[in-house]
Amino acid sequence: MSKQPTEIKSMSSFKRLANGSVTTPRGFRAAGVTAGFKRSGAPDFAMLVSDVPANFAGAFTSCTFAAAPVQVCRKRVLFCDTIRAAVINSGNANACTGDTGISNAEATCVLAANKLGINSNEVVVSSTGRIGTQLPMDTVKKGIELAVASLSEEGGELAAQAIMTTDTVPKSIAVELELDGVVCSIGAMTKGAGMIDPSLKVPHATMLCYITTDVKISNALLSDMIEENVAQSFNRITIDGDMSTNDTVIAMANGLSGVEIRPDTPQAATFREALLAVMQQLAREMVMDGEGVTKFVHVEVFNARSTEDAKLCAESVANSLLCKTAWFGGDPNWGRVVAALGYSGAKFKPEKVDVFYDGVPVVREGGDAGTPESDLVDIVRKREFTVSVDLHDGDESYWVWTNDISYEYVKINADYHT
Amino acid sequence: MSKQPTEIKSMSSFKRLANGSVTTPRGFRAAGVTAGFKRSGAPDFAMLVSDVPANFAGAFTSCTFAAAPVQVCRKRVLFCDTIRAAVINSGNANACTGDTGISNAEATCVLAANKLGINSNEVVVSSTGRIGTQLPMDTVKKGIELAVASLSEEGGELAAQAIMTTDTVPKSIAVELELDGVVCSIGAMTKGAGMIDPSLKVPHATMLCYITTDVKISNALLSDMIEENVAQSFNRITIDGDMSTNDTVIAMANGLSGVEIRPDTPQAATFREALLAVMQQLAREMVMDGEGVTKFVHVEVFNARSTEDAKLCAESVANSLLCKTAWFGGDPNWGRVVAALGYSGAKFKPEKVDVFYDGVPVVREGGDAGTPESDLVDIVRKREFTVSVDLHDGDESYWVWTNDISYEYVKINADYHT
Repeated sequence: MSKQPTEIKSMSSFKRLANGSVTTPRGFRAAGVTAGFKRSGAPDFAMLVSDVPANFAGAFTSCTFAAAPVQVCRKRVLFCDTIRAAVINSGNANACTGDTGISNAEATCVLAANKLGINSNEVVVSSTGRIGTQLPMDTVKKGIELAVASLSEEGGELAAQAIMTTDTVPKSIAVELELDGVVCSIGAMTKGAGMIDPSLKVPHATMLCYITTDVKISNALLSDMIEENVAQSFNRITIDGDMSTNDTVIAMANGLSGVEIRPDTPQAATFREALLAVMQQLAREMVMDGEGVTKFVHVEVFNARSTEDAKLCAESVANSLLCKTAWFGGDPNWGRVVAALGYSGAKFKPEKVDVFYDGVPVVREGGDAGTPESDLVDIVRKREFTVSVDLHDGDESYWVWTNDISYEYVKINADYHT
Repeated sequence: MSKQPTEIKSMSSFKRLANGSVTTPRGFRAAGVTAGFKRSGAPDFAMLVSDVPANFAGAFTSCTFAAAPVQVCRKRVLFCDTIRAAVINSGNANACTGDTGISNAEATCVLAANKLGINSNEVVVSSTGRIGTQLPMDTVKKGIELAVASLSEEGGELAAQAIMTTDTVPKSIAVELELDGVVCSIGAMTKGAGMIDPSLKVPHATMLCYITTDVKISNALLSDMIEENVAQSFNRITIDGDMSTNDTVIAMANGLSGVEIRPDTPQAATFREALLAVMQQLAREMVMDGEGVTKFVHVEVFNARSTEDAKLCAESVANSLLCKTAWFGGDPNWGRVVAALGYSGAKFKPEKVDVFYDGVPVVREGGDAGTPESDLVDIVRKREFTVSVDLHDGDESYWVWTNDISYEYVKINADYHT
């Protein structure tokens, strides 16, 4: 275990604001209302608006059945310079809904734009929930009316609540950073829980993440940073190995702090790090709020022949049902870890493999390292621990964040009907 | 849904014998005894012996961490013309046990050979159970003594019981077939349950399968048939997507019927089909006896651009935790099926995709086919049903057999310590 596989940014390097949200940066208002998509009557419609046109960047699911709103967002990224608003409903995914679905997603933008007095090309749209049912447009209309009426600079938390599906807690964050003597901020909200194995191409469960900032930054540079950071955050988490039709990350930068981020400057480096800290913190929170999750497991693989080999190993362990159920049971069963490495398809020499739990040797040279089982049980019964694999077969590394699979996971997903 | 993706042999074409087992073919004796590998005191040691040297073929796990007994079996396949005996313990996998593990596996063969008065190169060995613990050789010795003393032509059922781990029922079978006017037979036993996603290269969960026959057939021809049939049986089943370190299929042909099977003859075709029927029936029984299984699901994909695309689609659906939990819940949630197709990595046009449950349209051209949900619920609440996907994008097809994931699955695997 020689080196850190890749950068993991601790929030402690940045000032996280109490009650920070997407409305923390200057010039952003938001709302979360109950439009009626969910039978439960819980908030299910959110709106996020910038007072001025905002530069933006997006990352989307790589699922072949990309949902209608994802297709609309991709068009905005390709053809528009700025956006002003985002409209998000939970309870209906508007996925596998054909041309009608696309029309409904576009119509949602038009309806919101009309109410806000902006152009429909300045609106992006996201949906999350059950696949295959057309969006009830009356409900969309009601949501837009209620949301526009309640937009406020304190609305970030409500918006974060309204985008939840099986999430148990809303996930909002904001950090402050000083750039060129000016205090700027980055706010974000996310929802996740099930169907999480993002493979976001710039343009990945349904995870939705909306990021706001008041710095000025070009679409190209923002897009580069989002792409690079998604690879180090949302694309490193796997809850159930299922990827959604609707995964979306949208970042909006409205420049109202007056601070401009130019490429290859110390300011750009600082901003990117703060953005990564925000995205990694939300990614962690998504894993811990995964359906039925009781444990957070960091899986890291070192000294592989290639990054791809390291990734195959890390993802094979993180997605192994047998490892996940053993973790749920607090069982240190390392045989399941080596079995998952063995069928991963990665190239390595089994007789060289070491495995550690929180740094304690478990496997040495492919066999039992001799640590008393009781010591290992103490580790895997913790709420959070690290499984490290040293392949001793090269220089490349990879890490992922995952969790256990519980009775509750099965219950939630056997019973889910919206 | 134009054509059958690949041949599926019904047992009804062949005469399945009541109480048939590995000792049904002439000249095979077997035993199943309690040596003490399992704390429970259940039978845990089996032996299978041919009265005369038998030609043989093997197929083994493709896991990089192949267990010691698998490594020994591979050597036999490479270097030996015939074998006489197989020794199998359950409760200890002898995997990830290094050089000591190999020595212990070889020593097991020597001990058995000495008691049987044969050469140790004529003995193959299999182990299943917990990974990473050295074989207790005193227990092996005791098992060999007890087993040799109780070998009998009625011992097939007892052997099938002794190789079980989390299996709930022993899985034995035998079929009769008349070749050249002589009644010959094929017997087999298998164990499976967890860690099932075989990728047997000729030389896959710990699934173990031992096949016996009294026809005469060359190692080369038997190996070809095993390879071809494994691809159409054990490699088509997936219970939890985990593959074991110990998966083994061994076929033994002792020729005592006097009937010889030569390549490219009608007899060879008939024998291969009977062998396939046996292997497919055992594969089905393994899926139904999978840990916590309540449902058997046949997933078939038609009209893909390539077999690989069809396979990616079928395996993605069959391994999707969200599909498996929906099936457990009796939820027709086709959104999860299309999501799994979408992230499979297969190339196809989403707007052309049709999906059927037991032939009833569920998805047409990528969207809701309009069948009332109640009709679909009736299908997915059955103990056995078929999910068919027509990609309308080529001519290739693939199928797999899988099952649901229940509370019981999580319980068994969170609590398993042998």
